[in-house]
Amino acid sequence: MISARELVPGIVAGHKRAIARGLTWIERDHDRGRALVHLLFPRAGGAHIVGVTGAPGVGKSTLVNRLTLTLRSQGRRVGILAVDPSSPFSGGAILGDRIRMQESVMDDGVFMRSLATRGHLGGLSRATFGAVTLLAAAGFDVILIETVGAGQSEVEVMQLAHTTLVVLAPGLGDEIQAIKAGILEIGDAFVVNKADREGADQTARAIRGMLSLSRRDVAWVPPVVKTVAEQGEGIEELVDAVNRHRQYLDESGQWAERRGALALHLIELAMGDWTHRAIAQAQRNVDWSAVMEDVLSGGADVEELARQLLLQALKGRNHEP
Amino acid sequence: MISARELVPGIVAGHKRAIARGLTWIERDHDRGRALVHLLFPRAGGAHIVGVTGAPGVGKSTLVNRLTLTLRSQGRRVGILAVDPSSPFSGGAILGDRIRMQESVMDDGVFMRSLATRGHLGGLSRATFGAVTLLAAAGFDVILIETVGAGQSEVEVMQLAHTTLVVLAPGLGDEIQAIKAGILEIGDAFVVNKADREGADQTARAIRGMLSLSRRDVAWVPPVVKTVAEQGEGIEELVDAVNRHRQYLDESGQWAERRGALALHLIELAMGDWTHRAIAQAQRNVDWSAVMEDVLSGGADVEELARQLLLQALKGRNHEP
Repeated sequence: MISARELVPGIVAGHKRAIARGLTWIERDHDRGRALVHLLFPRAGGAHIVGVTGAPGVGKSTLVNRLTLTLRSQGRRVGILAVDPSSPFSGGAILGDRIRMQESVMDDGVFMRSLATRGHLGGLSRATFGAVTLLAAAGFDVILIETVGAGQSEVEVMQLAHTTLVVLAPGLGDEIQAIKAGILEIGDAFVVNKADREGADQTARAIRGMLSLSRRDVAWVPPVVKTVAEQGEGIEELVDAVNRHRQYLDESGQWAERRGALALHLIELAMGDWTHRAIAQAQRNVDWSAVMEDVLSGGADVEELARQLLLQALKGRNHEP
Repeated sequence: MISARELVPGIVAGHKRAIARGLTWIERDHDRGRALVHLLFPRAGGAHIVGVTGAPGVGKSTLVNRLTLTLRSQGRRVGILAVDPSSPFSGGAILGDRIRMQESVMDDGVFMRSLATRGHLGGLSRATFGAVTLLAAAGFDVILIETVGAGQSEVEVMQLAHTTLVVLAPGLGDEIQAIKAGILEIGDAFVVNKADREGADQTARAIRGMLSLSRRDVAWVPPVVKTVAEQGEGIEELVDAVNRHRQYLDESGQWAERRGALALHLIELAMGDWTHRAIAQAQRNVDWSAVMEDVLSGGADVEELARQLLLQALKGRNHEP
């Protein structure tokens, strides 16, 4: 059985089978997936991580497709993660779109993967963090993360991105007033897609108007770009905006800051792993039903109990090879 | 400034101001909110926690309203949590509905609160856990958790419930085939609301058909109940189904198991608090930029680093009063 350390060279060399294998480890949250992410993280600093989010139906998939083609024509390698929050209600619409996309843009400089994790707390953003780290270490210059844009999971996923593109479409004009400030806060650039439809200028103006009222960072004014992704219109301008944002992040020191934030996140995830081990170890080694009884009856100080269980796991480690 | 311990008697006595104050602490994740949840948890074992989920537009709010009226007529105290995942795209539609609801059902035996937490990882399910614990300790017999039913956050919230009601409406007939197995797995009862519309029988049959193919627990066959919440039709039958499910959980031992799972979750949350303290303490006390540099350059073993930082925080506690 191959170890995480043994898989690293293949990933770093960009071999697609090694990449796919590593992503599967990460998605299933194996110990090997965790180890792999720890090993690859120091090599993952070069990629530009770009989030693409927006309501269903605005044309995110087509836009990601076109962005990929244009980035490829500039010689850049592109990794694509389609993040599906696995809602039992939204279903897996993303996958159908992806098959079309794979046909049109697949070459050696593109790698696409759908990520879906169900069930365990924080599983999706953990898997996305791992997958971004792996693709960056594999030498992809730009990593596009597409989400269906509904719910807290996606906001968390977007926190990984250097640059977040918020995609809208005309005809949402009335709704725009109702959109919460959140959308303005997360967007580094706004895309009015399907701009050949009526109301595109109005939508773009409305966004600019709201941006002028609510600015988080006066040094970067998010551009509002009109595109018709189906026809490829506006894509070069959008790629240009993305590149300018990267340059801005570099020059303002925010690129380095973001890298530090991701390193902190890695440490937090590793601490979370220790808490999981502490629980598992306690369930094996102590009278767990008595522990539970103490918590249920109010006999235990939960904070002190958590401290003791963690200490046992952390110290136990000393005796292992 | 009042302490968590001082607030407990007012909450346990069911005083609405104390309850509201405690919920605010929990929602804002104050230290006092955490302490309060630890203190109240042992008193929170009696409530029946009922999740109500489904796609937007199926009439969940009206249904919750009617359920509340019927439960009140049976003399039971009802706590209601409307969980809003704060999507920048979905907006806060839930709140408008809630105002109508408050007018119709508010009396001393009902307490309603909207929960929304933005940003930090797992914040929403943590706040919901705390709020459920508080309302249960305050003596509410049934706690209804309503979510907008999109995304992983809600799935996590639903894991707190003893009984999950999945609400559908006719006219979704075509989509039902596309609904993933997930919806079948989480439902303990299925509600076809707006059952005066065409296709209600067909929708109910489709659900029953899928349930007969995919059963997780042969001892409980989820009932499919048709309702017209606007007119109050079918609500007594639904309340009856909810009560039968509680009895089933009791008799099968699953009620006690669930309580144990919540106790475990409380310990996990307390461990998570320790990891937050460990990070904060390290950022104050050690050369944090050197630590970051080690992680970024690959000089640090992240797992061992996480262990050391946690140990420092856990041991540091010994020196505090």
